[in-house]
Amino acid sequence: MIKVGIIGATGYTGVELLRLLAPRSDVEITVVTSRELAGVAVHSRFPNLRGHVDLQFCAPNSELLQACDVVFYATPHAVAMNTVAELLSKGIKVIDLSADFRIQDIPLWEQWYKTKHVCPELVAGAVYGLPEVNREKIKSAQLIAVPGCYPTAIQLGFLPLLENSLIETDRLIADAKSGVSGAGRKAVEDFLLCEATESIKAYGLSGHRHHPEICERLNTYSDYEVQLTFIPHLVPMIRGILATLYAPVKLGVEVSLDQLQAVYEQRYADEPFVDVLPQGEVPATRNVKGSNKCQIAVAYSEDTNTIVVLSAEDNLVKGAAGQAIQNMNIMFGLDETTGLQNIALLP
Amino acid sequence: MIKVGIIGATGYTGVELLRLLAPRSDVEITVVTSRELAGVAVHSRFPNLRGHVDLQFCAPNSELLQACDVVFYATPHAVAMNTVAELLSKGIKVIDLSADFRIQDIPLWEQWYKTKHVCPELVAGAVYGLPEVNREKIKSAQLIAVPGCYPTAIQLGFLPLLENSLIETDRLIADAKSGVSGAGRKAVEDFLLCEATESIKAYGLSGHRHHPEICERLNTYSDYEVQLTFIPHLVPMIRGILATLYAPVKLGVEVSLDQLQAVYEQRYADEPFVDVLPQGEVPATRNVKGSNKCQIAVAYSEDTNTIVVLSAEDNLVKGAAGQAIQNMNIMFGLDETTGLQNIALLP
Amino acid sequence: MIKVGIIGATGYTGVELLRLLAPRSDVEITVVTSRELAGVAVHSRFPNLRGHVDLQFCAPNSELLQACDVVFYATPHAVAMNTVAELLSKGIKVIDLSADFRIQDIPLWEQWYKTKHVCPELVAGAVYGLPEVNREKIKSAQLIAVPGCYPTAIQLGFLPLLENSLIETDRLIADAKSGVSGAGRKAVEDFLLCEATESIKAYGLSGHRHHPEICERLNTYSDYEVQLTFIPHLVPMIRGILATLYAPVKLGVEVSLDQLQAVYEQRYADEPFVDVLPQGEVPATRNVKGSNKCQIAVAYSEDTNTIVVLSAEDNLVKGAAGQAIQNMNIMFGLDETTGLQNIALLP
Amino acid sequence: MIKVGIIGATGYTGVELLRLLAPRSDVEITVVTSRELAGVAVHSRFPNLRGHVDLQFCAPNSELLQACDVVFYATPHAVAMNTVAELLSKGIKVIDLSADFRIQDIPLWEQWYKTKHVCPELVAGAVYGLPEVNREKIKSAQLIAVPGCYPTAIQLGFLPLLENSLIETDRLIADAKSGVSGAGRKAVEDFLLCEATESIKAYGLSGHRHHPEICERLNTYSDYEVQLTFIPHLVPMIRGILATLYAPVKLGVEVSLDQLQAVYEQRYADEPFVDVLPQGEVPATRNVKGSNKCQIAVAYSEDTNTIVVLSAEDNLVKGAAGQAIQNMNIMFGLDETTGLQNIALLP
Repeated sequence: MIKVGIIGATGYTGVELLRLLAPRSDVEITVVTSRELAGVAVHSRFPNLRGHVDLQFCAPNSELLQACDVVFYATPHAVAMNTVAELLSKGIKVIDLSADFRIQDIPLWEQWYKTKHVCPELVAGAVYGLPEVNREKIKSAQLIAVPGCYPTAIQLGFLPLLENSLIETDRLIADAKSGVSGAGRKAVEDFLLCEATESIKAYGLSGHRHHPEICERLNTYSDYEVQLTFIPHLVPMIRGILATLYAPVKLGVEVSLDQLQAVYEQRYADEPFVDVLPQGEVPATRNVKGSNKCQIAVAYSEDTNTIVVLSAEDNLVKGAAGQAIQNMNIMFGLDETTGLQNIALLP
Repeated sequence: MIKVGIIGATGYTGVELLRLLAPRSDVEITVVTSRELAGVAVHSRFPNLRGHVDLQFCAPNSELLQACDVVFYATPHAVAMNTVAELLSKGIKVIDLSADFRIQDIPLWEQWYKTKHVCPELVAGAVYGLPEVNREKIKSAQLIAVPGCYPTAIQLGFLPLLENSLIETDRLIADAKSGVSGAGRKAVEDFLLCEATESIKAYGLSGHRHHPEICERLNTYSDYEVQLTFIPHLVPMIRGILATLYAPVKLGVEVSLDQLQAVYEQRYADEPFVDVLPQGEVPATRNVKGSNKCQIAVAYSEDTNTIVVLSAEDNLVKGAAGQAIQNMNIMFGLDETTGLQNIALLP
Repeated sequence: MIKVGIIGATGYTGVELLRLLAPRSDVEITVVTSRELAGVAVHSRFPNLRGHVDLQFCAPNSELLQACDVVFYATPHAVAMNTVAELLSKGIKVIDLSADFRIQDIPLWEQWYKTKHVCPELVAGAVYGLPEVNREKIKSAQLIAVPGCYPTAIQLGFLPLLENSLIETDRLIADAKSGVSGAGRKAVEDFLLCEATESIKAYGLSGHRHHPEICERLNTYSDYEVQLTFIPHLVPMIRGILATLYAPVKLGVEVSLDQLQAVYEQRYADEPFVDVLPQGEVPATRNVKGSNKCQIAVAYSEDTNTIVVLSAEDNLVKGAAGQAIQNMNIMFGLDETTGLQNIALLP
Repeated sequence: MIKVGIIGATGYTGVELLRLLAPRSDVEITVVTSRELAGVAVHSRFPNLRGHVDLQFCAPNSELLQACDVVFYATPHAVAMNTVAELLSKGIKVIDLSADFRIQDIPLWEQWYKTKHVCPELVAGAVYGLPEVNREKIKSAQLIAVPGCYPTAIQLGFLPLLENSLIETDRLIADAKSGVSGAGRKAVEDFLLCEATESIKAYGLSGHRHHPEICERLNTYSDYEVQLTFIPHLVPMIRGILATLYAPVKLGVEVSLDQLQAVYEQRYADEPFVDVLPQGEVPATRNVKGSNKCQIAVAYSEDTNTIVVLSAEDNLVKGAAGQAIQNMNIMFGLDETTGLQNIALLP
């Protein structure tokens, strides 16, 4: 029985962790913290958990947390870094769904998150929790930085092209579309139904915090420096990210659609949660709603000699809570798919 | 291992049956029929099933179906009645999600469904599959008529009031609101996104087929004849039914909110899928999205001496496929909740 | 040229007033106030107004307001009552879209709005701005209390039945469904897209502030005391209210659908903004989206001897800003429909 | 008084033409044709037009149409080409909202529309109705080919860059997102609410009919051959197109954001319906919902030396009916903005 603690479980990644972990017989959720909601029943904030989760939120409490085998941080950025060291020192595994340990370049992190990092020495030891790349490292990791939602969809999309040196890396484009849950459960005017529904817009044109994360990671897969234009968009739906990726074919390389299809199918042949669609089919976020799958399709635009990749995931599952649990499964030597085999809700 | 066949699984109840049955280790889906899609992979119609269901649709085939232990009909009305007898005669259990065996009054059925019933003799033996009422009969049933989506929400809402003779029965009102999936996966103009989203309307004012079903059933719980005004509404969302029920307090009876709350809590104390909310909380369809739960709250309007009941369910789960499987579990002597414990997807 | 001021125009009724007034050649919007946004261009808050409204918000300013012919209050409740007297004393007409002058019974108002009313003496002189009832009084009014959104739809629906003494008045039911814009443009968690979309729920079961307003008004149309159960619901859409009204036929009265249809058609024959639909058609909120129309249909449920009325409006137009302008037109002796003839946006 | 006929007005462009034309005092809608709905009141199909349009649909009728001054075709492709010649021969102006006269390269048109063109001789004389480019030609045109919805947003976005030779033209990217109304009012399963809402997907990867139209037009603004990757996406909303355009800066050219902003502002300074947003603001489709505006913003991604343009319109207005009427206004020597000044509906 794995004893699990969740810190800051009052948002959408929190409820997803609980939805996915509560039914498991090999996991015991022992503590769910929230400063504001201490003493409140978890299911009174998340009525879908009535009858499934019987805990109350409690204030962060070292003793209770230190009795856990693993602690998930579902907190905003710059929270986890303050208390992770203590947990690690007690031998507790930590899976951080926030941004605190995602970027190795500390000054870059500090610039984007506008905060001094309080434990830069832990960052180097943190493992970036993208199992499709770091499975071996995750097995023995003590501290996991769960990738961001956009970074997951975009990396899984570009990965085969970079590993096979098929593209020019200095002018990649990621046109990404996200549902509103990516903004979290915060009372912000922009995300009111009346503001966000029946409309689409781009945002973050002056820079999005996932950009440095994506670039740092893509560079680790590439022999040449990666330059990326990343334009996120807000789509009037709850869940889902679709990343439409554009990459120019490398000078001197010739590609065909059949070959690209084979490259993707081979790369992900053994990946339980990356589903390369048959040629001619396209992913839709509804196909993965509530599931831990990332659906990918590849196309080739002959006119401009550009490869187009479509990568769809549920931002709260493969883009957050599901991927975090996938990491947990690997860390504890379990079948990686344990508790993550639920089928997407369609329609 | 229970061998399951599904007839007509190309619509939304079909995909829900598959979503809920495919992960089970005690069930084997052996045949999924569709005349139009024979030879097509099931997951090409329902991409959420990729990697979970590996079957192809096949044309209805007596031999294959007769090798099943149980057959679900997810067909339009007036289909099941043509072939059910043959299956029953071979000892195969039948769970019909259509309307063919829901109404005992054959002339009434024929009037509403505008068809001659071809096997009226089977109707009397069919068990109405509302476990909260008919659990014992379901155990030994060969043929189950799964209740309609509206009838489930409305019966579960009125039931405690009728059983306890708390209300005048001659002027009940059910103001019901349904998501668009209740209309099925049919290419009908009215249910296009551009027609149905960002709007609400009533429909079926001249009569809805669920009305005679509801009244026939409510009468079985009541000592006095039930008369009901039933107004269904179309709500711009995929899933969910909310029934708002109004009942005048019986002449000479006095009620209080506390007492009503107790009546509901007691009635459903042992029901795994009926969740009576604490006083002061209200159901929302999002709380049960994808789950087999029906959430109920009761209120009392002193000014008009009227009891108000709110009853929310996922029309495709407790209102259709989930309830059908709940019946199957009972029929096969399994724990009634097997495979139905999944938590609602929120948000 | 009518000089118009708008106080507190940062919400949805504010932008609707501007959308409807800006194109008019007989109206000059001279001042738009907002404490928080003073100095900010109006179109930077409402980008749909770019090129149409060139003003900046300014802090409330008596001098500027006193140069107006009419001032609209688009403020939360308990704001207008503090400054209306001063404007009236200068001969400026006031149209209050908030609740401050809607209820004649001051203690009742104070109980529901949990505030001491600072100018009860003005309430008696305020005219309730429902033109279909009070057109004559509006002509000479100095202070208009614009009806609430629910009260408009519900009153227009019940009015012909009460005026013609066709119903028992002691147990009326109004099951009302509203889009989310009724909650205003406030950063409140419950109205986030991820909280409010893809779901329906009832709210305000312990009492809604529009209930006493509705009852006070309905009583003025009825010889017998009105008792009403009013259950509002939140629907996942931006705009629109649909009120489904249930009324028992009066003892000793016989009604037919044809007769009811005639009663409604006659009552509203000369009303430019109440559209009684032909028998058999039903209103949908999409039919009136952005327009000042209220669509009404009447039906009769023989089984329960109950009359069912459907009343649909755009809560921000006929339920707020449009009706306010309709009042203004009447007060200034203009054609009542001036500037309000725009056609609903469909789809 | 301009006498107007509309052919095939049963879809969404049809109702938009009627919504925009009906209120005009200088226009008389004399005939609205539909083979299937002949004899039916127009407002029974479009209930938003009740009280505004009193016509019935009639079968196509040469006599009635020939009494018009101008005829709009709101038909599917390959319909207009059969009857346009006859109308033109009688001196009637024709504005075709379909694709029949948009592409000058007849074999290319025939290849994409899989039909033999029956009047290729008329194509050369047709004027492509993009006023921002062809205003002079439109003044004297007899036959207008109204641009497609995607082509309008994309051309207006790329135009200033091509005219000023700021970009490499051989690898342009248009990542376009459209609301579902772009698919028309056809009963097609893919566009059911339950299929299209709460999801985003790309489509037309193997080629979209607007691609050749866009390329042919962009080439007329460019000294170098244009190659374009065009990926359309389906967004879960009714109205709106957002095109996100990516163009590499031309070799040897240096650009800055200020300069780009100036280029766009100058290009569209006199355009009533193209609104270049202030630096730092981004368009959203909600800002133009129901209006004839196209909102544009330009950004520059230094890392990849790529210009990013955002272009938003209402696909049914500036992308169809509004633009058609803008053309009519120009053809008849009216103020171009007549009847098109309505403000977007927000929220």
